[in-house]
Amino acid sequence: MVLNHIRAARTISRIELAAESGVTPATITQVVRELMDHGLVVEVGRGASTGGKPRTLLQLNPRARYAVGVLFERNTCVVVLVDLTGRPVARTSFPGTATLPPGQGVALVASRVNALLDTAGVDRGKVLGVGLATYGPQDRRAGVLLTHQPTPEWFGYPVAPRLSEILGLPVLLDNDAAAAAIGEYWLGAVDTPAFGCIYMASGIGGGVVVDGELYRGSSSNGVEIGHITVDLDGGPCGCGNYGCLGNYADPTAVIKQALEASPLGARLGLDPGDTDVMAAFGRIATAAQAGDPAARTLIERSARHLGTAAVTMTSLFDLDTIVLAGPSLAAAGPIYQSVVQEEVRRRTFARRAHPVRVVTSVSGSDAAAVGGAVLVLQGELAVLELASTAGPAESAGEPAERAGHRR
Amino acid sequence: MVLNHIRAARTISRIELAAESGVTPATITQVVRELMDHGLVVEVGRGASTGGKPRTLLQLNPRARYAVGVLFERNTCVVVLVDLTGRPVARTSFPGTATLPPGQGVALVASRVNALLDTAGVDRGKVLGVGLATYGPQDRRAGVLLTHQPTPEWFGYPVAPRLSEILGLPVLLDNDAAAAAIGEYWLGAVDTPAFGCIYMASGIGGGVVVDGELYRGSSSNGVEIGHITVDLDGGPCGCGNYGCLGNYADPTAVIKQALEASPLGARLGLDPGDTDVMAAFGRIATAAQAGDPAARTLIERSARHLGTAAVTMTSLFDLDTIVLAGPSLAAAGPIYQSVVQEEVRRRTFARRAHPVRVVTSVSGSDAAAVGGAVLVLQGELAVLELASTAGPAESAGEPAERAGHRR
Repeated sequence: MVLNHIRAARTISRIELAAESGVTPATITQVVRELMDHGLVVEVGRGASTGGKPRTLLQLNPRARYAVGVLFERNTCVVVLVDLTGRPVARTSFPGTATLPPGQGVALVASRVNALLDTAGVDRGKVLGVGLATYGPQDRRAGVLLTHQPTPEWFGYPVAPRLSEILGLPVLLDNDAAAAAIGEYWLGAVDTPAFGCIYMASGIGGGVVVDGELYRGSSSNGVEIGHITVDLDGGPCGCGNYGCLGNYADPTAVIKQALEASPLGARLGLDPGDTDVMAAFGRIATAAQAGDPAARTLIERSARHLGTAAVTMTSLFDLDTIVLAGPSLAAAGPIYQSVVQEEVRRRTFARRAHPVRVVTSVSGSDAAAVGGAVLVLQGELAVLELASTAGPAESAGEPAERAGHRR
Repeated sequence: MVLNHIRAARTISRIELAAESGVTPATITQVVRELMDHGLVVEVGRGASTGGKPRTLLQLNPRARYAVGVLFERNTCVVVLVDLTGRPVARTSFPGTATLPPGQGVALVASRVNALLDTAGVDRGKVLGVGLATYGPQDRRAGVLLTHQPTPEWFGYPVAPRLSEILGLPVLLDNDAAAAAIGEYWLGAVDTPAFGCIYMASGIGGGVVVDGELYRGSSSNGVEIGHITVDLDGGPCGCGNYGCLGNYADPTAVIKQALEASPLGARLGLDPGDTDVMAAFGRIATAAQAGDPAARTLIERSARHLGTAAVTMTSLFDLDTIVLAGPSLAAAGPIYQSVVQEEVRRRTFARRAHPVRVVTSVSGSDAAAVGGAVLVLQGELAVLELASTAGPAESAGEPAERAGHRR
């Protein structure tokens, strides 16, 4: 708890820490001494004097612990290593697992995580665990996907336990868009009473943070904004619903429209047989941002549909801020930001109660991976780990059992 | 806090109360003695023996305090008086305020509240306050509507402070659908991790309860499920959005369809000039439930659209239960229940993570009014009132100031 207050404040004095946490100054002094003994907190100079002696400021020791975040996607995967403050210190990305059987896909991710840790030269004993951010639905407790995407073999495959077993590190599973949302909060980019994140990679998802906590609902399978009906006469979606928003706004939909607008499709070298939809979409988004009128028309249409997603999310969750995140929103971020802002301004139900601001993620393409790592730092896992670790050397022990006990 | 544990359990022993609240048995004994001295709690016999002496059971004294709930609607208003357990003990309803200026509308409500209290013969000193449940958007803190419905004069009119002034009782303002949802929870009808309520009167609204608390978001103006876009090419809605769900499913939409199906419209005596849409809709719903095929076709279509609302709510809030409530869902409840259940079963995103159950409200037409009264019982208002009242006689003092301090 004290660590979390120090994190949120970035730098803080012992007196301020006592005031904010409601713990007595004597206890704070004691706890801070223990945290400093473990190397988790360091003194970083003095604050402005308020009359008496200037106060010594504390901050987290960024290099005391690390966490790994993985965006696990059909088309692309991203691995980041973040320090104890959530700041990325190393990163890699590679083509996704769309065509691999689950066993091979997980082994590939594990090898990339190991390679990144080796390259970064970080002591594995200081790595708290891995946050695996991917699409839903999921059984978060069991660390299992409840979807037949990309292939039926993935349904029920124990993706988090298997990765944990190979890496010898605790692994937690969570939704990519939810991870992106909490990452934004942790990094200090958004700190409002209720904000949401719209996340676009191959598909479209969402996350909501209220008073600094992820909205979880019944089973952490909410905010699936890509799978709400926006066309009562629309065709069936792979999710079981029909007329889903994603089918009008996501990379696959935009590529289809670009191929129909044949000079554009040919100019950008789009190929109907291409399976890497994110790369193909990236070319359209980049062209739009560079001023290609045909590409811009398509991206603006997609953005207006994301505007509908933002209006629905805001009218249901009563949000004051929408963050646009994910690899497919990074390339043409300014277009999406301005169009979605305008839709929300005009159409949100509670616009007379308060304005709704639309911003782009500070983590861009890496938002979900960074968020996955942040969930490790933030979670009970980290708290237990920090509290119970006498020295860092034991922190990688018994990974399978730990993974079984995570929230 | 102790009162709330007793309420939730209905009957409970002191030992169980200590275990559930985490307070020491000695303190529980002391607090219970004070509550009994104030007449708020009574002993009601003994529970089964678990080896030793059978334990004396406690329950709330239903007649110790009362609360008033008002459904404040364009077409119809409902006033209920509930006892300390939330059970309605008196009720009245009257035509709504659609055509009245705000001052006259509020005066009409006040006169009906006073008449109900007189008829019920309840000591006004025992009445904790009034929960005014109505549509949004609202400024809940100020007790003010932020909508031009039904006429522009209502926008910004201090409806709760004015009613409080006339009645000499604290008045809190809240959303009708949110009130219906928390009422359902308080009355013990639904007690799951995350459930939602779809509420239909003249319009369609929603409320969500997570872990026993109303979802509030940024300003308590969320879950506006009637105003989400379900038709990207749909026409403009009075709310500022377009293609809104309400315009396909609500009473006005169904009446329009019935008038177009001319033999049905004539058979039910529908008149395009009729302003009481809820009464006209009630005739169609009743005919549908009685087996009229043309009426049934229309109600089933409306129900399928509410099914879309339920799927969207569930896929965004990850709900395990949907409660259908409100006057316009009461007349043909079984049709709505079965159609919405089937839509949710087939289309909800997280259906593989857990089932979603659809039920009808235990309070039917009165759900929002009962919920308004429950919000008074549940709120800080009630806690403060109960804690600080030496005797019941002072409890109606300084209503304006109290209203200004409510949450």
